[in-house]
Amino acid sequence: MAVLVPYDGSSPAHDAVEHAVETHDTDELVLLHVTELADGMLDAGVDIVQEQLKGLQNPASSEGLTEETQALLEDAALSFRMETTVGNPAREIVSFAEDNDITEIVMGSHGRRGVSRVLLGSVAETVVRRAPTTVTVVR
Amino acid sequence: MAVLVPYDGSSPAHDAVEHAVETHDTDELVLLHVTELADGMLDAGVDIVQEQLKGLQNPASSEGLTEETQALLEDAALSFRMETTVGNPAREIVSFAEDNDITEIVMGSHGRRGVSRVLLGSVAETVVRRAPTTVTVVR
Repeated sequence: MAVLVPYDGSSPAHDAVEHAVETHDTDELVLLHVTELADGMLDAGVDIVQEQLKGLQNPASSEGLTEETQALLEDAALSFRMETTVGNPAREIVSFAEDNDITEIVMGSHGRRGVSRVLLGSVAETVVRRAPTTVTVVR
Repeated sequence: MAVLVPYDGSSPAHDAVEHAVETHDTDELVLLHVTELADGMLDAGVDIVQEQLKGLQNPASSEGLTEETQALLEDAALSFRMETTVGNPAREIVSFAEDNDITEIVMGSHGRRGVSRVLLGSVAETVVRRAPTTVTVVR
């Protein structure tokens, strides 16, 4: 039983990791980082994709984590791994949950580009609507 | 720290109680039953409202629970209470969470009248969008 936490280094993403750690202390945590590519960008040439992928070295390490999140995970002494993927965030999150042994998605209400504190972010909204599993939107 | 579970006796509502019990075993559970009234119905006369309220006797008891949910809560030996309210379900759930010391809402993706197994129910969708707290949609 693995819990998926979409992770982009933002403060809501950190809060989601914290919530997952608090409520699911016996599970494996999978932190998924999606490098966003606009639709059609894949057709624009592999160079761009390769450029994007440069930032994704050592996906199994904790390199992509903020110090705060890293400290939190170390304190929790929890089994976790990082995964990375490229594409549309909501679609990648749902598809990762479908293809892997994910029982629950725990996510922040907004990612790095979220601007509204009132309205739900479009990524969270789409994931809640389409995910095959239980979804927790952390506020 | 109280967890709110909207409860209408449906199977998704039972699953939500089960999820809440499994992930929040130290919290108080508040089971909220909303008797739905269409907008404007309150203007139609208090008789109708009183008729609706007849079913809400002993809100503090476990009378409104299915046997299955009652057994689950007894096994969990968990502190819980039932609350009842009348009105638009999504609005009542959000407003109850705002007015009480609710830290998280755990709800089924569909209620008693949910027809689709694919799309998210409109009550769940509205609650996720408007709730001031973390919301878990159980599938």
